[in-house]
Amino acid sequence: MTPNENPAPGERAVWQVRPIGLVRSPFTSQAGVPVQPALAGPEDAGTIEIYEQFAEGLDGLDGFERIWVVSWFHRTGPVRLRVTPYLDQRQRGLFATRAPSRPNPIGISAVRLLRRAGRVLHVAELDLLDGTPVLDLKPYSPTFDVFPASRQGWLEERSRQTGRADGRFDQDR
Amino acid sequence: MTPNENPAPGERAVWQVRPIGLVRSPFTSQAGVPVQPALAGPEDAGTIEIYEQFAEGLDGLDGFERIWVVSWFHRTGPVRLRVTPYLDQRQRGLFATRAPSRPNPIGISAVRLLRRAGRVLHVAELDLLDGTPVLDLKPYSPTFDVFPASRQGWLEERSRQTGRADGRFDQDR
Repeated sequence: MTPNENPAPGERAVWQVRPIGLVRSPFTSQAGVPVQPALAGPEDAGTIEIYEQFAEGLDGLDGFERIWVVSWFHRTGPVRLRVTPYLDQRQRGLFATRAPSRPNPIGISAVRLLRRAGRVLHVAELDLLDGTPVLDLKPYSPTFDVFPASRQGWLEERSRQTGRADGRFDQDR
Repeated sequence: MTPNENPAPGERAVWQVRPIGLVRSPFTSQAGVPVQPALAGPEDAGTIEIYEQFAEGLDGLDGFERIWVVSWFHRTGPVRLRVTPYLDQRQRGLFATRAPSRPNPIGISAVRLLRRAGRVLHVAELDLLDGTPVLDLKPYSPTFDVFPASRQGWLEERSRQTGRADGRFDQDR
């Protein structure tokens, strides 16, 4: 395999991404999907199927309780730079939200890894639609990823509620 | 703006990503770059310059102490599915590491947001090379992103040391 081409310095390049696998989940439409893994439960379970050609890269992932799933939001509608996020009633700048309709519709989900069966990962606390393409997996590390005291702007109050998506960012709306 | 094209179900599609901005940092080569924001310090500071056309999406980001920078590792070498990560002496499956040479070389960095000046974000605890393309920004949320007790496999011991990169994943090696 070769890496993607690099741009000339200063150039506004375009790069290509390709799925390394696929999410299988009980969620077939955006309405009802947990807004985040942290707002999902153990019953929100599914699998991540990694394509054969990438299976070797999974070695050692089993040791991690949680993994980052970097995904492609394949069902989102047009990009809007101001959105009303699921957990709020006010418009916010898109980048101050985790709404899926983004210039590069890339998601990051810290899901719980239950077990690995070859190239199939059984996961829970899943917030991704069935069929979501997976671009990357990374280990979740408390050392790297935990910053507990961080101020969280408009989410400070809102994030204490549980959240399920409606269809507001769906391509079909 | 329109979203990227969606693939037919089951198709192994290719999508395009485009930078929304650029990292300016003191790091001009991989050797010496902090391995993760958590292993960087306040002196590892820089800016993230978001292109004008996306500036409106930054509204409200100031309220967050920390932000996820989703970046494109533009200087990495060929993909290997087994790598010896910076913090270890043993080969691991690529997806059990945060090494930059990945099938889709996408990075996630939780950097500290110091202040925003229009479309320029002043940040610290930065682990990205100067010129790194930015694909997305998301608010870091303790509610969504903090899972403190997670087991972390081979990183359990290793992550207590501080880490700076050498050039092992550089395209020029």
